[in-house]
Amino acid sequence: MKILMIGTTGAIGKQVLKELQGRKHEVITAGRNSGHMRVDITDSASIEKLYQTVGNIDAVVVTAGSSPMKSFQQLQESDVMEAIHSKLMGQVNVVLKGQHYLNDKGSFTLTSGILADEPARGTVAGAVVSGAVNSFVVGAATELQRGLRINVVSPGLAENSADDIGHLFPGFNPVPMRRLINAYLRSVEGVITGQVIRVHE
Amino acid sequence: MKILMIGTTGAIGKQVLKELQGRKHEVITAGRNSGHMRVDITDSASIEKLYQTVGNIDAVVVTAGSSPMKSFQQLQESDVMEAIHSKLMGQVNVVLKGQHYLNDKGSFTLTSGILADEPARGTVAGAVVSGAVNSFVVGAATELQRGLRINVVSPGLAENSADDIGHLFPGFNPVPMRRLINAYLRSVEGVITGQVIRVHE
Repeated sequence: MKILMIGTTGAIGKQVLKELQGRKHEVITAGRNSGHMRVDITDSASIEKLYQTVGNIDAVVVTAGSSPMKSFQQLQESDVMEAIHSKLMGQVNVVLKGQHYLNDKGSFTLTSGILADEPARGTVAGAVVSGAVNSFVVGAATELQRGLRINVVSPGLAENSADDIGHLFPGFNPVPMRRLINAYLRSVEGVITGQVIRVHE
Repeated sequence: MKILMIGTTGAIGKQVLKELQGRKHEVITAGRNSGHMRVDITDSASIEKLYQTVGNIDAVVVTAGSSPMKSFQQLQESDVMEAIHSKLMGQVNVVLKGQHYLNDKGSFTLTSGILADEPARGTVAGAVVSGAVNSFVVGAATELQRGLRINVVSPGLAENSADDIGHLFPGFNPVPMRRLINAYLRSVEGVITGQVIRVHE
């Protein structure tokens, strides 16, 4: 398959990229500051240009997007909007634009997060965008044409970031990277659509 | 209780208002074009001004906010952003601002919708914002101070709008208004917090 992967520098993206390359897929990587192609997913024109340039895509995997951590008392509209532009609308636009470019029976695999379901301190902005992406995928799957599929992986605390950020998520069980990678594989190479693949321990 | 109710012209808001007034609460209504007070919930300055003017509030109920219906092939970034500014950020801002104004042990009751969980044709924008509001509430409840509570009612197809819009939601069971009203009452007068009260049939 020819796979477009957006965001390959994060704890999860890195590993998924390695796996997809190891499985002999042709992976085109895109990121704001790294990868084969430059893309700013907060800008839908930049996304459209990416699709026009790459072409002939069978699968898109997004592991990009971030959201600020901040106590609820300090949280501002602008913090939530930052997460919305990046992690929510970035992914939404990848699909809204991509539906017109992907090959028949192509797939989208997005990324949300456990925060949509399980709160942690200072993560309401992350909860908002993750909950939104989950519901987006459930809805979009029913309307995509040409056999296009869409799923979202909702990662728990990734094992390879537990040392760095685990102290912010007390009691969250680290998820083995193999389980996370498999979730992406099930979406990309499998048959499912409209699923929120919760990889929580 | 002194209750601020935002959006009282819709199928659900109208009924909830009537019930709260019948239960001898002092209800201050606010809306873009109607009610005791004018407010534009897409503008956080307008929300802040409302809180400064009303004061001494025990409970806020929001039954405002809309999202466009459009096929996924036609859906544009601007359609999704319209729903985000209105139904999502409108409600988020009511809470972000209101947490600093409500009386101790006050409560927020927001409104999402069944579309977060159950897709219908052309309703992806509504799904996105409803899913986001649900996760917002679950997260926010853990961080609110001074005994403030927050819940969200997720209405199914309201019985009193089934004649008008039921044809857009084939197979969705109309929900008796009494059950919907009770969900709002349980949040306003009860003890719960952090709950997504799904009133689906």
